[in-house]
Amino acid sequence: MFSERLVQDAALIQAQFDLVLGALDDVDVTHAMAYATQGGKRLRGFLVLESARLHGMDETCAIWPATGIEALHAYSLVHDDLPCMDNDDLRRGRPTVHKQWNDGIAVLAGDALQALAFELCARPEVGPAEIRADLALTLAQAAGARGMVLGQALDIAAETAQQPLSLEDITRLQAGKTGALIEWSGCAGARLAGENPERMRQYSRALGLAFQIADDILDVEGDAQKAGKRLQKDAEAGKATFVSLLGLDAAKARAAELVDEACAALDSYGERAETLKEAARFVIARES
Amino acid sequence: MFSERLVQDAALIQAQFDLVLGALDDVDVTHAMAYATQGGKRLRGFLVLESARLHGMDETCAIWPATGIEALHAYSLVHDDLPCMDNDDLRRGRPTVHKQWNDGIAVLAGDALQALAFELCARPEVGPAEIRADLALTLAQAAGARGMVLGQALDIAAETAQQPLSLEDITRLQAGKTGALIEWSGCAGARLAGENPERMRQYSRALGLAFQIADDILDVEGDAQKAGKRLQKDAEAGKATFVSLLGLDAAKARAAELVDEACAALDSYGERAETLKEAARFVIARES
Repeated sequence: MFSERLVQDAALIQAQFDLVLGALDDVDVTHAMAYATQGGKRLRGFLVLESARLHGMDETCAIWPATGIEALHAYSLVHDDLPCMDNDDLRRGRPTVHKQWNDGIAVLAGDALQALAFELCARPEVGPAEIRADLALTLAQAAGARGMVLGQALDIAAETAQQPLSLEDITRLQAGKTGALIEWSGCAGARLAGENPERMRQYSRALGLAFQIADDILDVEGDAQKAGKRLQKDAEAGKATFVSLLGLDAAKARAAELVDEACAALDSYGERAETLKEAARFVIARES
Repeated sequence: MFSERLVQDAALIQAQFDLVLGALDDVDVTHAMAYATQGGKRLRGFLVLESARLHGMDETCAIWPATGIEALHAYSLVHDDLPCMDNDDLRRGRPTVHKQWNDGIAVLAGDALQALAFELCARPEVGPAEIRADLALTLAQAAGARGMVLGQALDIAAETAQQPLSLEDITRLQAGKTGALIEWSGCAGARLAGENPERMRQYSRALGLAFQIADDILDVEGDAQKAGKRLQKDAEAGKATFVSLLGLDAAKARAAELVDEACAALDSYGERAETLKEAARFVIARES
């Protein structure tokens, strides 16, 4: 059920990107925007759509923030891959945007994708103004210097730090770097329905942390071909990760524990939450 | 009156930045954000505050989008100055962010400033949700691939184009690159009051174009010391500008004509619009 839903939702989001990006001028930057948004699992967009369904909202309004969060995620990858950041040549099995075009186009395409994310959340089609303002505000908080960018800043600071990061430091770093957007995505469906997102917050916080631990495990054990990106990066860079701090077995046990926590947070929704529970189990079983 | 108001409003905006940025974590990226937002005329923020006053709105709500547009403008300068873009070492008389820190910090600080701009427009303090959603949506449109980034993309495309740009091309390019944010700023006060921004749109469109023509004139005739940045850049790069296409005298005449148009658009507001009219006259008389 989950795996088919993930594929269907990815197709819905792609169609929405085609619609939105197809209306833009025919220049390198907009081509780079389209390129950067292709492929990937679209887990964040799926979380928006599926959490919306769980709260009785249909796809015609949820597709906008679902596409918006994927635009924001794509921008973060394009900028992360730049030579002055992680300097990666490969992303989702293809050349990164700055390799396909150049660094200037990658900076601009990322910048425009971030603006697009806010546009898609604030559009009239999304729903009442209260909800659109709430989505835009919470997305800005998740994306900015108290969310995703803070995580990236802490990551950069760690490279020149005197002491290796502790488990607490890494947890805080990852809560920003990957956690903030995943949490926003899981809460978005409740927000779209004007409901309290607390249960979804518990679910998606645990999910986000499990996702990151699984990423660290994948970085050590994974197959670069299947992952579509360079692996063993953290070990090469001498970075502390959940795996280097906990060891491989304890990291796997912790990830499994977090998945149980995520699922438990949804128990009060009953059977309708089964697809989201499956998503949590998938997150630690994935190969890419 | 205008010149004092500009200085007062710049101080209000600085105080707001101190409040907002002072609450962030103590890391390089947030220091770079604060550095990037210091100095400058803050003309866009002034336009938000003054257009708000013209529409009967006080500073306690208008200060948020006024600070937001200055955050967005600061982000665009930080990214524009990067080696992979315009490669400038000097901005507002000081080293650019990537010279003071490095390229990675400059990318991240710009990214976080863009997110901050949307946060400041969508905050509850700004007013009713209708207005916050409207400000966030229109700002996203002005900042993205149909506004500012489109202008930058057309600018990059022009560098490798077979034919030199026409006056029409340059006008379209600048309407995006500098015009979109100036137009948004001038309209923001009407939007804050829930009023039709049409007169303000006419004013700020003409103002934005006059501003850019004045910038091209300054690039040729200006004093780099007073401007606080490198000049004669366009001529060195062989770029078409309003001055290269029209000649210096005709460019000055066109800018003056646009200032008259901008002022005329405000006539129906009566004397209360005098400060904004002075702002329009200032734009073509400035030395930086």
